[in-house]
Amino acid sequence: MALVVQKYGGTSVGSVERIRNVAKRVVETYDAGNDVIVVVSAMSGATNKLVALANEICEFPDSREYDVLVASGEQVTIALLAMCLKSMGYKAKSYLGSQIPIVTDDCYSKARIEKISDKKVKADLNDRNIIVVAGFQGVDKSGNITTLGRGGSDTSAVAIAAALKADVCEIFTDVDGVYTTDPNICDNARKIEKISYDEMLELASLGAKVLQIRSVQFAKKYNVDVHVRSSFNDTTGTLVTKEDKEMESILVSGITYAKDEAKIAVMRVPDKPGIAAKLLSPLSDANISVDMIVQNASEDGYTDFTFTVTKADFKKALMITKKVAGDIHAKDVQTDESISKVSIVGLGMRTHAGVATKMFQILAGEGINIQMISTSEIKISVVIDAKYTELAVRVLHEAFGLSGRDVRVD
Amino acid sequence: MALVVQKYGGTSVGSVERIRNVAKRVVETYDAGNDVIVVVSAMSGATNKLVALANEICEFPDSREYDVLVASGEQVTIALLAMCLKSMGYKAKSYLGSQIPIVTDDCYSKARIEKISDKKVKADLNDRNIIVVAGFQGVDKSGNITTLGRGGSDTSAVAIAAALKADVCEIFTDVDGVYTTDPNICDNARKIEKISYDEMLELASLGAKVLQIRSVQFAKKYNVDVHVRSSFNDTTGTLVTKEDKEMESILVSGITYAKDEAKIAVMRVPDKPGIAAKLLSPLSDANISVDMIVQNASEDGYTDFTFTVTKADFKKALMITKKVAGDIHAKDVQTDESISKVSIVGLGMRTHAGVATKMFQILAGEGINIQMISTSEIKISVVIDAKYTELAVRVLHEAFGLSGRDVRVD
Repeated sequence: MALVVQKYGGTSVGSVERIRNVAKRVVETYDAGNDVIVVVSAMSGATNKLVALANEICEFPDSREYDVLVASGEQVTIALLAMCLKSMGYKAKSYLGSQIPIVTDDCYSKARIEKISDKKVKADLNDRNIIVVAGFQGVDKSGNITTLGRGGSDTSAVAIAAALKADVCEIFTDVDGVYTTDPNICDNARKIEKISYDEMLELASLGAKVLQIRSVQFAKKYNVDVHVRSSFNDTTGTLVTKEDKEMESILVSGITYAKDEAKIAVMRVPDKPGIAAKLLSPLSDANISVDMIVQNASEDGYTDFTFTVTKADFKKALMITKKVAGDIHAKDVQTDESISKVSIVGLGMRTHAGVATKMFQILAGEGINIQMISTSEIKISVVIDAKYTELAVRVLHEAFGLSGRDVRVD
Repeated sequence: MALVVQKYGGTSVGSVERIRNVAKRVVETYDAGNDVIVVVSAMSGATNKLVALANEICEFPDSREYDVLVASGEQVTIALLAMCLKSMGYKAKSYLGSQIPIVTDDCYSKARIEKISDKKVKADLNDRNIIVVAGFQGVDKSGNITTLGRGGSDTSAVAIAAALKADVCEIFTDVDGVYTTDPNICDNARKIEKISYDEMLELASLGAKVLQIRSVQFAKKYNVDVHVRSSFNDTTGTLVTKEDKEMESILVSGITYAKDEAKIAVMRVPDKPGIAAKLLSPLSDANISVDMIVQNASEDGYTDFTFTVTKADFKKALMITKKVAGDIHAKDVQTDESISKVSIVGLGMRTHAGVATKMFQILAGEGINIQMISTSEIKISVVIDAKYTELAVRVLHEAFGLSGRDVRVD
């Protein structure tokens, strides 16, 4: 007998009929002899309706009350699912975040889980209850309701799995699992069977569609096996787990891209200590996140300083940067809004230096110019002209053997 | 400076626009130098939508989960109202029943309040916060969410007023107050300025429209002044308070009627001890409430036994009674479904024996036959032919001086 935590998102519980389907799925697992904890989100659309009400009341809703408001969405779903399970003859009991309790810090709308009590839930599990938990929400030390941010139900599920030492945390979603790249632009994209926490974190832009990044950090910290799978079929999905020998032998696990960034280059800046800080501090003061940063080698005492920001922040960032550029006597500020960032991720590259070279060669072979490069231990990202994005993803996907043929480290 | 508890029902908070109006009303009271606690219901229609979802899931929703479900309605309103107050520049804080906490027994859907903690709310009041409380809901000793039954927000408000020793509990509703009788059938119905708890309890059928009966019991027990008033204007409404000399001098305060009962008469029952019990036990076993009971004087060792039940219970009650009537050798069972019960209520009749006689004379004067009579210390009820209901109410209303002219005890 195992303890299984299952999480169903808003689409999976979006109607009474779908809640019935979830109930069926839950009791299948239960009837197979497992203990089951189900974590659910609000019915799809419900949260948006609540947010619309808040925005109708005022432009900037109070953050404490905002969390009280949106937390009511999951309350509806847990009650309906528990009712459904009971009407099918099963013992079931719903829990709000505050009832377990799932204790968080007091950062409304993006609270972090600090502690989960296992006492009540364990007692109910021993009594063979199916436990239905409201995802996305918790309670701070003073008893205020908090929420964990969009996608927070994933984190709730993983955290509960960790606290109760579950054997597996199943995240049911509307895709089959995590893919080697976006199937929409690459026909040969394959479902990844098994992937390490670190790779999953780097594959954020692929994973974000199916898994909140914070939930992966949690899973890594507490060593929780996370099984990302479809709520529409019984196919095995992707297992996110701790790394093993097999994973390390794979050079590249996945390829991601992001088209939502823009580039700002400050040209011919006098190369003195503190230039980077002078350029970047005003941006962080304005709450603008800078992604990639490149400062090239100094030439005649001058350097070029290039960075990317999201397109949403671009205008504001440009305005600020132009002002600073004048202050520090830069020659010019250039921009490019049609760029994209393509990344390859894999544990294998940690021990194999040739991966970056291979990537650059493959892109060069297609005549794709690399404008910026940034690397982490298991990721290489390049900025290229946006129009080459799909081409770059496809050729890299093929060259690194993700289209079926394994490229292993010798 | 006073502590004022204000309660607004579902209609008063039924839209964002109406919530804004409630907020305006609340801050008027606050700006006048008072501390304010606002108790709100769910937005009108919200609870019905939730109940519909539950009924779609299954025929008999689990009672614990049902309360979790419907309690989410008030959660939405408190958040929106608190947001609105804060956006207007006021300090405000919302509280769920479980956060105060309002501790109840564990009878889901009709829980009774056992204890209200004043600690957190007092601290927030001292800090000049406007407190916004979710009506209708509480939490049992084990942390399960409970609800108090339809209209339970009135009881929440009165109980909170009692716990925090508020100066007054204002119940805002869609009528101006409690009337001497139903204005729909009697043009001369007057708003009552002041009425005692006991009279209000007896005027249940008038009061039920504006005040949950249990809230009056609570108000009586803890001596809470309840001001029933309109949320659409500033007119003084009806004060429900402890009785005083002035009230005792009024013979009749109000006249009520009920058309939802039916009569069952068991004819010529052998008059032996235990007959009443034999007839009534099977009814209470079947969960049927009997309202008025009349057993007339024995004649030749036989008696007639007559009682009324609600029309909803009538068929079932008749079936049971016919069976028992056979067992105890009654001659016959007769029924009448077109009856009504007309009652006059007033503290003055406690010390004045002539009131009943006067009532009977007035009805006789109109040719209205009295079929059954039942009295309490401050109420006289008669069962008459339903077709005379409106006539009876109007002549009694006039004769006992409720149409403007006071009839006082000499």
